[in-house]
Amino acid sequence: MVETDVVVVGAGPVGLFAVFQCGMVKLRCHVIDALPHPGGQLTALYPEKPIYDCPGHPSILAADLVDRLVAQAAPFDPVYHFGVTATTLDPDSHGGWHLGLSDGTVLCARAVILASGGGAFSPKRPPLPDLDQFEGRSVFYSVPRRDALRGQRVVIAGGGDAAVDWAISLAESAARVSVVHRRDRFRAAPMAEATLRRLVAEGKIDLVAPAQLHGLEGQDGRLDAVVVADLNGVTRRLPADCLLAFFGLLGEIGPIAQWGLAMEAHAVVIDPATGACSRPGLFACGDICTYPGKLRLILTGFAEAARAAYSAYAAVHPGEALHFVHSTTAGVPGAE
Amino acid sequence: MVETDVVVVGAGPVGLFAVFQCGMVKLRCHVIDALPHPGGQLTALYPEKPIYDCPGHPSILAADLVDRLVAQAAPFDPVYHFGVTATTLDPDSHGGWHLGLSDGTVLCARAVILASGGGAFSPKRPPLPDLDQFEGRSVFYSVPRRDALRGQRVVIAGGGDAAVDWAISLAESAARVSVVHRRDRFRAAPMAEATLRRLVAEGKIDLVAPAQLHGLEGQDGRLDAVVVADLNGVTRRLPADCLLAFFGLLGEIGPIAQWGLAMEAHAVVIDPATGACSRPGLFACGDICTYPGKLRLILTGFAEAARAAYSAYAAVHPGEALHFVHSTTAGVPGAE
Repeated sequence: MVETDVVVVGAGPVGLFAVFQCGMVKLRCHVIDALPHPGGQLTALYPEKPIYDCPGHPSILAADLVDRLVAQAAPFDPVYHFGVTATTLDPDSHGGWHLGLSDGTVLCARAVILASGGGAFSPKRPPLPDLDQFEGRSVFYSVPRRDALRGQRVVIAGGGDAAVDWAISLAESAARVSVVHRRDRFRAAPMAEATLRRLVAEGKIDLVAPAQLHGLEGQDGRLDAVVVADLNGVTRRLPADCLLAFFGLLGEIGPIAQWGLAMEAHAVVIDPATGACSRPGLFACGDICTYPGKLRLILTGFAEAARAAYSAYAAVHPGEALHFVHSTTAGVPGAE
Repeated sequence: MVETDVVVVGAGPVGLFAVFQCGMVKLRCHVIDALPHPGGQLTALYPEKPIYDCPGHPSILAADLVDRLVAQAAPFDPVYHFGVTATTLDPDSHGGWHLGLSDGTVLCARAVILASGGGAFSPKRPPLPDLDQFEGRSVFYSVPRRDALRGQRVVIAGGGDAAVDWAISLAESAARVSVVHRRDRFRAAPMAEATLRRLVAEGKIDLVAPAQLHGLEGQDGRLDAVVVADLNGVTRRLPADCLLAFFGLLGEIGPIAQWGLAMEAHAVVIDPATGACSRPGLFACGDICTYPGKLRLILTGFAEAARAAYSAYAAVHPGEALHFVHSTTAGVPGAE
């Protein structure tokens, strides 16, 4: 049993900023995340992609933003629990909560801030025989380091933003890039699709569409070729060192869905004026929450995190007024 | 008559970010500000103070944040009108607005985003004879450059954050710092007040309280002394090169108050789900707007700016769906 003021569920960008905002009102936080590291989607899905809409950062790589958010929260000494999920939530006898973690730890807090985004998410896997032998060795669902694919023959499967963006991005450095998609139309941004089609016309990307993944050839986890089939079932062999499958993510909101919270479309309904969920002492921010007019933007999540932290203060210190001070005046621990 | 998609009123941090967000949905903006430069309060009041609560910036000087917000908006080629105020607002014949500026320009737009913060603000001036002879030469209401006060005898008047913070900040570099306040208690952050009292105890700051400003001595705009009076009217002469008077700001919301918008406590009431004011096509974000649960934080203003920009899109392109794309996918003009 560990006691703290606030438990933040999720160490993605919004969860990290919730820790900072809690610190600004002198609330101590424990933070849990299913991943082995902070950053959530930013770290897991596109660490090397630039983000353009973080205010005051004309362009920042996702991984750098995570580093800065971790540094921003650090003066308040959050306690991180990585690689664990929240499993149980039970009210304690004096208005707080007991949050049970998958490693057996129980965290006791007056307030819980849910910032778990799309949940403990995992990629959608294509239904191919022997897939598991290749996964993590030559079949991937994200690109941790662009340079690792330099000079390789890469097959990219999918028709959304990730597939199109990575095809464009790798067209220069890879030995060959083939894009396999079951339709001829893409779901990506129109500008990105236009770039893709230009590179196809210039012979820098092979477009194999409409077609579907049919099988993998290779051994000991090393891929020799990806076999694809057209609409008539006619197969074709694409020599390949690596398959990137971008079929989207399966958001696993997980046990949170069982906690008796009002929900809509896999998101927790909050009162936007307070960040409060339908049970007292529980708050939510970022992609896990919804309310009328909600925008799924990173900067919107930051504002929701501040709202949740201020409301958590009232839950932790009932009846006490919060002395509001701008950060330029209050400073942060360790700063001059 | 100049036609554009959106007019943003106010080039402070939130107005600048509204321009960026409008750009992301391909809306062209004109921006107006009463000041001769962008940045609003950040530039006018505390350009050299660090801000700690801008997400992803553990610490950033206010002036640097402004530079970055200007750079972030730049790819969308906003047209700035500095040193002018909005005077008139009239509906045009096809659902848009005509905004009249103090220099005679008329801007025509389908949407107007109010981001004018506390308004075209000005400092509260102490009621002293001949004050205007010294203003801008030896009497100031803000500190544009800390170094200009090095080695000077500085009298600081006021009891809020600005007075206390600048007394602490200048205690080292000024020849002498005296703080004049009409009460013995301060309205500043408790931590800052404790630092002030320590410096007073160490003899590094003179505390003259309770006392009020009584007169100025000097000539040709150069100050020799500030005369103060205690509660019994007994006067005392404080030799001084410079007086910093921090009695707060007079927010001049100005003509906006006459535009027939629903208001509460000098702020424009918006629907937080859309950012819309009570008249169609008008939106507001940042300190000028209010709604239940509103936090006056810079990062909250950024999220409100995004909300207003998305709603402005619907006003400019009625009936057209907005294809939502994350910035990592859409990119910005000029970025790779």
